[in-house]
This record gives sequence, structure tokens and C-alpha cells, in this order.
Amino acid sequence: MSTTTQLRSLNIDNINPHVKTAEYAVRGLLAIKSEEYRATLKDGKGSDLPFDTVISANIGNPQQLDQKPITFFRQVASLLENPQLLEHEDVLTGSLGYKKDVVERAKWLLSEVNSVGAYSQSMGAPGIRGSVAKFIERRDGYPSDPSLIYLSAGASSGVNTLLHIICATPNTGVLVPIPQYPLYTASLAVLNAKCVPYNLDEEKAWGTNLDVIKASLAKAKEEGIDTRAIVIINPGNPTGASLSEQEIKDVITFAAENKLVVMADEVYQTNIFIGKFHSFKKILRDLQKETPGKYDNVELASLHSISKGMVGECGHRGGYYELVGFDKDVVAQIYKFVSIQLCPPVIGQCIVEMMTHPPVEGEESYELYRREYDNIFEGLKKRATALYEAFREMEGVKCQEPAGSMYLFPTITLSQKAIDAAKADDKAPDEFYCLKLLDATGVCLVPGSGFGQKDGSYHFRTTFLAPGTDWVGRITKFHKEFMAEYKD
Amino acid sequence: MSTTTQLRSLNIDNINPHVKTAEYAVRGLLAIKSEEYRATLKDGKGSDLPFDTVISANIGNPQQLDQKPITFFRQVASLLENPQLLEHEDVLTGSLGYKKDVVERAKWLLSEVNSVGAYSQSMGAPGIRGSVAKFIERRDGYPSDPSLIYLSAGASSGVNTLLHIICATPNTGVLVPIPQYPLYTASLAVLNAKCVPYNLDEEKAWGTNLDVIKASLAKAKEEGIDTRAIVIINPGNPTGASLSEQEIKDVITFAAENKLVVMADEVYQTNIFIGKFHSFKKILRDLQKETPGKYDNVELASLHSISKGMVGECGHRGGYYELVGFDKDVVAQIYKFVSIQLCPPVIGQCIVEMMTHPPVEGEESYELYRREYDNIFEGLKKRATALYEAFREMEGVKCQEPAGSMYLFPTITLSQKAIDAAKADDKAPDEFYCLKLLDATGVCLVPGSGFGQKDGSYHFRTTFLAPGTDWVGRITKFHKEFMAEYKD
Repeated sequence: MSTTTQLRSLNIDNINPHVKTAEYAVRGLLAIKSEEYRATLKDGKGSDLPFDTVISANIGNPQQLDQKPITFFRQVASLLENPQLLEHEDVLTGSLGYKKDVVERAKWLLSEVNSVGAYSQSMGAPGIRGSVAKFIERRDGYPSDPSLIYLSAGASSGVNTLLHIICATPNTGVLVPIPQYPLYTASLAVLNAKCVPYNLDEEKAWGTNLDVIKASLAKAKEEGIDTRAIVIINPGNPTGASLSEQEIKDVITFAAENKLVVMADEVYQTNIFIGKFHSFKKILRDLQKETPGKYDNVELASLHSISKGMVGECGHRGGYYELVGFDKDVVAQIYKFVSIQLCPPVIGQCIVEMMTHPPVEGEESYELYRREYDNIFEGLKKRATALYEAFREMEGVKCQEPAGSMYLFPTITLSQKAIDAAKADDKAPDEFYCLKLLDATGVCLVPGSGFGQKDGSYHFRTTFLAPGTDWVGRITKFHKEFMAEYKD
Repeated sequence: MSTTTQLRSLNIDNINPHVKTAEYAVRGLLAIKSEEYRATLKDGKGSDLPFDTVISANIGNPQQLDQKPITFFRQVASLLENPQLLEHEDVLTGSLGYKKDVVERAKWLLSEVNSVGAYSQSMGAPGIRGSVAKFIERRDGYPSDPSLIYLSAGASSGVNTLLHIICATPNTGVLVPIPQYPLYTASLAVLNAKCVPYNLDEEKAWGTNLDVIKASLAKAKEEGIDTRAIVIINPGNPTGASLSEQEIKDVITFAAENKLVVMADEVYQTNIFIGKFHSFKKILRDLQKETPGKYDNVELASLHSISKGMVGECGHRGGYYELVGFDKDVVAQIYKFVSIQLCPPVIGQCIVEMMTHPPVEGEESYELYRREYDNIFEGLKKRATALYEAFREMEGVKCQEPAGSMYLFPTITLSQKAIDAAKADDKAPDEFYCLKLLDATGVCLVPGSGFGQKDGSYHFRTTFLAPGTDWVGRITKFHKEFMAEYKD
């Protein structure tokens, strides 16, 4: 132990061990290294680097890349920030591009929140929760109760709240898909609770396999774990999957039979390229109607966010979760818990309102909104397809067809020589691959080991948000060279 | 146990017991009841209520009350939300009220964050942290390192992070002033760590009494508690105190001798009515210079926020903390922890930038900024004084002169009859008083029991943010009647 360590109150050996255990690869070593490369290039010191731009394909950060904000959202937000503009004729007569519905929406939101600089109710402003409830009703065809909708600082904050409530002892377990978005395992680690992993079925487009889930639950039970909840990410992160109605029915039935809270992470619900999005809430209500009684006990928390989809406003930290079937005393504890952090960012709440209540046909901003929305969607689909086609051509790479979300998660078959080289470098084999890729091309991916994967399999996750397709070519070229260099 | 309870996964008896233990009175029963009154009045159904407005003197929420946002901040924010405005001549020529420095600041901030809808680095955008560091350097006359400044979603989120790192076991203790802002006790409860309370000295303007702190630490040690940190709130919440240089020196020396992290909650640093604000960072550096060696080991986290002061932008959830003297491995764990929640709201980060880098003399927006800032300050001071004078006139009420922050925290002497009536109603005596006040006048305060107080003493906390002075008269009138009704 160094002298300094001895002198301080805190050192690596005496801080919260559960924080130490947590892992969050999306912003880990690779991300930090890529930021260093970016800074080097910005400072004009990158002349000996083999690339001239860094491509951040590691994080679903749409507006850091090509995605433009939706004009309607931002025009309203600018009026909320500076309500003095509402007094100027230029704004009201439209020469600045502000349409009548923009002005009206801003006035209405201001009447709901008073000022975006003021705290709102801890669960979010009532009028905004009302708009969210109406959105859910339109989406699902079933009623939604605004008093059970909690606005949050992105979906991450909602997950954090829910896991805080659920995780009662070190023996509490939560079923988490593998691969998963590492927020779940990281939060469970911090809360000193147990992750009960269940593998998704790569061969079946990364769908849920009920036999696998059952076996995971049974194994946890044998180990004395009290499993309380099951997490589903649909559309899938990092997998890019989109679950079928039957898969969702099976999961809900399994949850009902085993008394598990269903945490449905549905933040990618508009990023759907194959088929259609089925919400857990709708399918639960369908099941409740079909089989009265059996599903009454199901507790569902369904999460959504302004960060993804065509909105892509992740920097604004907005989201919501709807609680269905929860005990009212438990809801009161959720309220108290969120009140300790006061309230979610109010401008983010306002963007939640606009996401769930966008301009509709006949309103002045509709046409532009529709065009921007569709263009973003088509752009994402095009790049997803280009990337998928490129992966299909690569030696030793297998990739599922992009069905939903913003990611592809191909398998890579690595040679023993590559695996040994990784080991010698004290890295996981796919991390080794991704580091080499970053050093050679400036393209930053996240290794599959950051999300969890079946033992002995290797993957990486890439977003398809970065503009252009040049960087796909960089990956193809690197891959060929890597495979040649590490041929067994 | 009800049938429903049996059927669900979660009930009040099996959720996280540490969340249940947490108390957060600022948004508790009284706040909820006051919101119900407000809704009743809004719906036009309040004709049988004895008041026609609700006065929220319970929460430091400046812009929900009288305080207007600073124009410069909001003009820049509106351009950040809608950068298309930057292309309009009307904006650049100033007819909308946008001065040249507003446009320049917006352009610079956009170049730093790219889009306010994009994630930033988890610790905040580098350029913004640079501005914060320069602010600290100007304030203290000592260097500040941007790589040790963490932007946060309000100071609350910073406190949450720091306590997560510090609280290693159920036996970890943190010294917390009594009375305190309940974020501290609530967070320690959720983290299953120990609050080591130390009483502030009401007779000495709610200052720190080192003998009392020493005794608290010694008692905790006897109980086997491993005390790791000391929290100081300066200027004081709920007390309205402002610590002297000597008091701060004593606390730092005590922390150095006892190897304690100093958590300096300095969110009210510009709300100073008597004397001058002394930052812990400056005084630590002074001490380090005066006595080389002795203070090298001090770990200081100093927190600030955009929520209070003349900024009052709490709905935007922005803040920062500076880490001084922390072990680098511990800092790496802090970085990882904050990365799990991705990043603080970016528009809030931009307001942190403007708070720490406001217009200066010679710049176009300076005059207006100065005038707005001074007017808010004078308004707060005037109302603080009016409230203080009113309290001094009330029977059985004693109040310290307002020195800092946004609160007064008078003692009330309650009769045995009032105490008995409270007991019969299953309420703490000061909670009983505040509920009666709310029912009679619509004025919402927070009882002293929500912050902690010496046994047998009773207080309430009131902000002095609400406009006008009519509501002060309501309290005076109620108090007279209450004292008469419950005369022993």
C-alpha cells in the first residue's frame, strides 16, 4: 500500500465493493481510447494515425452522428427556453419558421410547467403524463392511467428506480437476457443483487426461448435465489431482434405462473425494420381479456425514452415508465424514492410530451414532421442493410437480419492464434479484435463480452448511425487483414 | 395479508427495506396535501376553503414562484435548442433581443456539444468543465483541474454518486449536520449506511461546534461505526446559516486529523446576506500553503448547482462537483459509476457553463444580466428580512437573522396542550402545527422533524421565495389563533 493510500479516507480497497464489481463496457476502455484518438485528430496531431476520423459506432448517440433533431420538437423547446419570443410578431407571423401549432404547443406546455426552470412534481408534470397516457391508449387500444406513469431522466433512470425497489437482499434475483444492455448487470451489481442470466436464441433471430428461461429460473431456485423479475429488451439491444406476439405471450404467461415482475425495456419501439412492434402492455391486456383471472396478478413496468427512435434526443435525458398491476403501497415507495432526486429534467419531460403527441395530419407542422421522421427511418434502414450485407460477405462472420433497434450483433469466429494472442495481451478475444480494429481504422465497436454471450462465442455490437458507408469498408478491409494475420 | 398481496411478486413487506426506511419530508404528506388544495382551487371547487391561493414555501423552487430566469441564459438556451435561428437575420441583427454575445456563446457551446440532443462524455462536456475550472480559479485564487470536475444532474445526483462510492458496508458512517437537508439521511438509508448526526449550534447562528462534532465521532467509534466523511452544508439548508472562515478551518483540520472526506454542499454560495462566502476549496488551499504537509491527505468534494442562487434553474437539473485530493483509482470508479447513467442533461450542462461564465463588463448582455441578478438578490434579501421581522414579533417564536441560503428555520415553543393534540393525531408536534397552518391559510412549510432537530425542540423551514408579503400576514394571524387555541 502506498503512503498516499494510507493517508486518505478512501482507497480502491475500502470503497463500496459493489460499485467496483459493476461493469459498463459501452463507455469503457475502447470508448475512452477512441475519445483520445478523436482529441489527437482535433489537435492536428494525428498525422501518423492510419485514419483521419473516428467513427463512434459504439454508442447509440444519434445526434452526435448524422441524425438531425426533429424541427417541431426543437422549435417548441426554443420557445419554452425563451418565452419572450412569444411576444415578438416575427415569431407569431411565421417568418422565423414557427408555425401556429408550434406556438400553441409551447404556450400549452408553459401553462403546464410554468417554467422549464422550475421543479415539477417528482413523477413528472401532470399534463405531460396525461399526453403519455393518451399515446399508450392510441398505441394499444386499452386505457392507461396517468397516475401510474412516471416520467424519468431517460429509461436508465427508470430502470435504476425499479431495480432499487425490487432488490431487497443479496439473494434477490432478476432474470436478464444474455446478451443484454449492460445497464442491467451493472445496476444489479451496484445493488448487490443477483443477475439470473438467460440466453437468447441467436439461431432464431435472437428470440426468447422459453425452455432456456425456465431452466435458468430453476437453476437459480436450486441455488437459493429469490427471483423477482424478468427483463425483456424488445426490440433488442444489442441483438437487433424484434419479438413476435407469441414470444411475448409466452413470456407474460411464464411471468404470471412464476410471480415475476415484467420489466419491458421498449425504448426502440419505433426502430422496427421487419414486422411490427407489439407492446407488452397490449398483449397483457389481450391475455387478461382472453383468460379472465389468470393474468390479474401480472406486474408490468414498460419503459420508453426520447433517446432513440426517430427522436434521438438522448442528451435531453427524458423517458417514462408505466406501472401496471403494482401494489399501491409499492407505488407509494416508488414515488418516495423518485422524490429524493426531486424531478426529471423538465425540458426532457416536454420532449416526452411531444414524442407521444406529435403533430397530426391537418396541423401546420405535420408535413415537415412526417418528412423528417420518414427520412430518418429510411436512412437507418438503408445503413442497417448495407452493414448487414457487408457482414454477410466477411469470412467467419455471421449476422442476423436487422429486425429492430439500432444495432447489429454479428458472431465472429476467431482462430486459436487470435485467441492466444488476446490471452497473452490479457484481453477477451473479441475485445482484442475490437481494439485492433480501433487502432487500425478509427472505428469504435463494443465487444460482445461487454454484453454477455454464450461461452466460446464472440461478437461485437455496432450501431448503424454513422453517416456514409465508407467506414463499413474500413471494417471489411481490417477484417480481411486480421483474419490473414491470425490464421491458424 | 390480502389476496392481491399474495398474488403479486412485490408487496410492502418484501421490497427493498432500505428504500422503505428512507424519509424525504420536503416532498412528503404536507407537499402532497398542498398540491391537492392547489388542484381544487384550479378546478374552481375551492369556495369553502379559507384561502384562495396556495403558497409553496416548502420547496426552494424559485421559478415556480416569483423568480424570473436570467435572460442571457435563456436566450442562449433557445438558440441551442433551435440552431436554425442562427441562420435568421432577425436573430443576428438583434430585433428579437439577441445580443452579439448571446449568439457567440450559443455558437461556441454548440461547437463543444455538437447538439444538446446528443450524449456528452459521462462526466460532462470537456469545454464546459474547462469553464467551471476557470470560475473556481477566479473565485478562489487557486488552480482547478477540469479533469477532476464532474458535471451532474443537480447537486443531488452528485451527492448520490459520492455516497455510493463512500458507503462500503452497513457499518460505514457519514457525519451529517442536524438539522440537514434530508437528501443526506435519505440517501444513507437507501445505501444501508449509518448517519452519524452532529447538532448545529442554534444559539451561534446555526454554526458548527467542533466539540459537538468530536463527541459525535467518538460516540460513533464506540458503536463500532467506521466514519468516512463529513457533510457540511454552507450556506445552510434548512438553517440559513453562513459559516465563518474559522469554522471552515476547524472542520478541515478536524477532517485532516481524522481522515474524513469533506463533502461541502455549497449550492447556496451566492445566497449570502451577511458577510462573505468562503469556499472549502480556497480555505483548504490556504491551509495547505500555511502548514505544508499537514493537509495533503484531505479529500474534498465541493458541490454546486444551477438550481439556487440568482440562477434558480432547478428544473434543468444541472450542477457539478470538484474532486480534490482523491486517489486516482477511486476517481476511476466514480467515472465508471456515472457512466452507467450515461451523462447529465446537456442543456443543464450548458447552463452550468453560463452560470460559471456569465457576461462580463463590456459585453453586450452585461448590463441586463447585472440588473436582473441584482434585482433578484435584493428581492430575496427584502423578503428574508420581512419574514424575519414577522417571526421576531410572534409569541413563542425565535429566529436567527437570515445570513445565507433561501430559508429561515425558526424555533417554535409549543404548549403541552398542542403537543398532546399532535400525539392524539399521531403526528409530530411541528408537523401538526404545519398541517393546521396549511389547512387554515394555504401556506405550506416543512416541519423541523423533516430535517432533524434537537430532542424536544420544534421548528419549521420556510423559503422566502414567494412573492409579496401577504402570506407572511397569514402566518402571523394563524400563529396567534393557534397559540390561543392550544394555550395550556
